[in-house]
Amino acid sequence: MILTVTLNTALDITYRVPALRPHISHRVSEVTERPGGKGLNVARVLAALGHEVTVTGFTGGATGRIVQDQLTATPGLVDALVPVSAPTRRTIAVVDEQTGDTTQLNEPGPTITPAEWSAFQESYEDLLASASAVALCGSLPPGVPVGAYAGLVRTARAAGVPVLLDTSGEALRRGVAARPDIVKPNTDELAELTGSHEPLRGAQDTRRRGARAVVVSLGPQGLLALTPEGRWRAVPPSPEHGNPTGAGDSAVAGLLSGLRDQLPWPDCLTRAVALSAATVRSPTAGDFDRAAYEKLLAQVSVTAA
Amino acid sequence: MILTVTLNTALDITYRVPALRPHISHRVSEVTERPGGKGLNVARVLAALGHEVTVTGFTGGATGRIVQDQLTATPGLVDALVPVSAPTRRTIAVVDEQTGDTTQLNEPGPTITPAEWSAFQESYEDLLASASAVALCGSLPPGVPVGAYAGLVRTARAAGVPVLLDTSGEALRRGVAARPDIVKPNTDELAELTGSHEPLRGAQDTRRRGARAVVVSLGPQGLLALTPEGRWRAVPPSPEHGNPTGAGDSAVAGLLSGLRDQLPWPDCLTRAVALSAATVRSPTAGDFDRAAYEKLLAQVSVTAA
Repeated sequence: MILTVTLNTALDITYRVPALRPHISHRVSEVTERPGGKGLNVARVLAALGHEVTVTGFTGGATGRIVQDQLTATPGLVDALVPVSAPTRRTIAVVDEQTGDTTQLNEPGPTITPAEWSAFQESYEDLLASASAVALCGSLPPGVPVGAYAGLVRTARAAGVPVLLDTSGEALRRGVAARPDIVKPNTDELAELTGSHEPLRGAQDTRRRGARAVVVSLGPQGLLALTPEGRWRAVPPSPEHGNPTGAGDSAVAGLLSGLRDQLPWPDCLTRAVALSAATVRSPTAGDFDRAAYEKLLAQVSVTAA
Repeated sequence: MILTVTLNTALDITYRVPALRPHISHRVSEVTERPGGKGLNVARVLAALGHEVTVTGFTGGATGRIVQDQLTATPGLVDALVPVSAPTRRTIAVVDEQTGDTTQLNEPGPTITPAEWSAFQESYEDLLASASAVALCGSLPPGVPVGAYAGLVRTARAAGVPVLLDTSGEALRRGVAARPDIVKPNTDELAELTGSHEPLRGAQDTRRRGARAVVVSLGPQGLLALTPEGRWRAVPPSPEHGNPTGAGDSAVAGLLSGLRDQLPWPDCLTRAVALSAATVRSPTAGDFDRAAYEKLLAQVSVTAA
């Protein structure tokens, strides 16, 4: 199976309102809820592609129970979240129906105790024994040490499991130094890590810092990959217009899916770009349009960079 | 005991953010949660005054469980909420720490099935047998007929239990026609009901429509009461500055508390105005400042109107 780690899981709530105006009262016209946090989004896409996926991370309180109930209902997905005493955070996306814009309110996340963090690390090591690849995704909740991902990368490498890291800031900086197989920063995260706003230069620097391969997300312009086997640019047929929410998580799912199937890099990148573009095209945030994905697989261009 | 009815219970969530700006992402700096809906607020104030209170209405899903867990932890308060299959709604108050202003997002509430509505009515009739007074508070969730409060007023009158109604719009219009002992509109609700923006005229019209007594909330200017025993204006010593959230619910609690203790009208009104002002003065929305309340009891002026 493929393992995804989401240390800061969330219950993602979307509210639609006719128009958002600060300092007045709004009647919400539509409420939707679903499991959130980057690793859970990646897992949902992998499960939809037909892979066996196990999700781990933390779950707590009434919000955690809602997240787990929905995960359990997803075919192909196994819930291995570790229980904690503080409740799983909520994120609220308020969609303004007049403009289509979204205002985001993100709770900070539960504080993880040292005992809970130890319990997670033990469970993670057990899960690695049957994993063909692992993705470490998203922010760290309060209480988890900033070097957490570095430790989880080392454990995966010791177990011989290919590991992808998708995070930002200091957690990314430390994680990269632990030599993950793939990191997938966007251009902002890359600039924060390396100081360079030039993707090629930033990616080279990131490899020098320890990442075996670097896949930079260039938004609507696709991906740039620097790997031990070569350098590539993977570009969709045309920039997609739509909701970019979850496009980065879909790209991670595409890379993992290709890795799992032992495809060469250009084919991995094609899957990643096609899934990402098919996610932007889908009317539901974070889902991908399957017909569009299958068409896009033949339309993505991969060239040496 | 005193019975309060909250058909549209809520989990009230408050988010503090440094500054709310539409269409960007915000990190919430503080999250607080508590049971909400007018009747639950009234009950919490009554319990704090030392009365035995039973709350009824509906509860459902994970949000309903959080509401019930918190209610059960309140001394003096008995939970008689009726379970329903759809989840209890959330309300989100986003407090802008820069301006102090609040932006409110209210979910519509669960749809109540005809069987659930029947189950509630049976339970309500049973609870009335041991009630000394009942308050019917707030909006109606989807699925509950608009004449609901009219029916509940009639059932209370048939059981010989004094009944106070605090709602708005068509539910208020129909409820008033069923001859409740007290209605407590604010000036907007009164104007919507009667077409008059003049509180005295509006209150007279409301009595003609069926209410035995009408207590109009004039905001910082106190209360105007028209009753079979006389007319009064009850005014706090000075207009309070602070957070008016829950001030109206505290006024209802003051009226019920006086009714329960069989106080004459001027004393009931004094309690209501003192509690309302002490709620505005409290730093926590919806709680009242007990020391301020006890001082204010001697400072509220009640005069014939």
